[in-house]
Amino acid sequence: MIIAELALVTGNENKWREAARILGRPLERVALDLPELQAATSREVALEKARAAFETLTRPLVVEDAGLELAALGGFPGPFIKYWEKLGGLESICRALDGHHDRSATAVCVLAVATVDGVDVVEGRVSGTIAGAPRGERGFGWDAIFIPDGETRTFAEMSPAEKDARSHRRRAWEALSARGSAR
Amino acid sequence: MIIAELALVTGNENKWREAARILGRPLERVALDLPELQAATSREVALEKARAAFETLTRPLVVEDAGLELAALGGFPGPFIKYWEKLGGLESICRALDGHHDRSATAVCVLAVATVDGVDVVEGRVSGTIAGAPRGERGFGWDAIFIPDGETRTFAEMSPAEKDARSHRRRAWEALSARGSAR
Repeated sequence: MIIAELALVTGNENKWREAARILGRPLERVALDLPELQAATSREVALEKARAAFETLTRPLVVEDAGLELAALGGFPGPFIKYWEKLGGLESICRALDGHHDRSATAVCVLAVATVDGVDVVEGRVSGTIAGAPRGERGFGWDAIFIPDGETRTFAEMSPAEKDARSHRRRAWEALSARGSAR
Repeated sequence: MIIAELALVTGNENKWREAARILGRPLERVALDLPELQAATSREVALEKARAAFETLTRPLVVEDAGLELAALGGFPGPFIKYWEKLGGLESICRALDGHHDRSATAVCVLAVATVDGVDVVEGRVSGTIAGAPRGERGFGWDAIFIPDGETRTFAEMSPAEKDARSHRRRAWEALSARGSAR
């Protein structure tokens, strides 16, 4: 697998922008919104998405699925975080943890690569906590409520370079690069 | 559409049992677990599921998708409630509402009928509140935390006949029967 040949298939421009920034080079993008299956983990969602994308595009590609696992909810909502964010807003996630004694969370980024050889998956995970209220204007999605361990600021309060240095997305792309160069 | 010709396609025996009880007659079941698309509403999930089931089975059929919409979370988790229940347990849903000032919720049951004429959808909705803690041993799913308006007991504390008299599932099957007889 040669990573430079992969196109990132995503309807989300922010994910593509961050990936290119992390890789430090241009990254081809196919702006396609793929239907996503319901599954308890981002890993399963990404796997299915990569299979479906390869069937349609028949070229080497990578898809991403990101999730936010709340420890107090047994890892829920995971891949479904985007619906909570859209329907209830970030503040409602912060308030939902007030009744729990554990605000810890894991940010997850799964990359699934599809080539003629099949589908391969890597994962980047970062531990942290959910803020008392949304803070910061940068980033996107749920960046304003996630504080990585060892920090006091949310991802949305960091510069792009600071976020990239410690993000789940960075770890996933690094894991992918390591796998690519090992072959 | 003649309802007596429809088979209920579901991997969930409880849903089938309740539907037959509500209809007051035997109901054919196809025990097939269908892949479910991610979508913000049970309506969209059921529509897609019915289309996919008809493609596979090519016979008149009905599928169900149930959801629990929490007002404080803007309607989330809706169709994703089963993942929260499975991953975090019912107690974690009760605690998540402690930090909110609104425990109101809507139980939703969507039935999607697929025939050669296309797909038709009906919905049954019941307003209620989320209990402070799970109560009762009857029913299934999230019955132990949902208290329909005008009641003090959860669905899981009621007899099957009492639950059926006021359930979202009852309303959906009644709506479907009304539509069938109008044609």
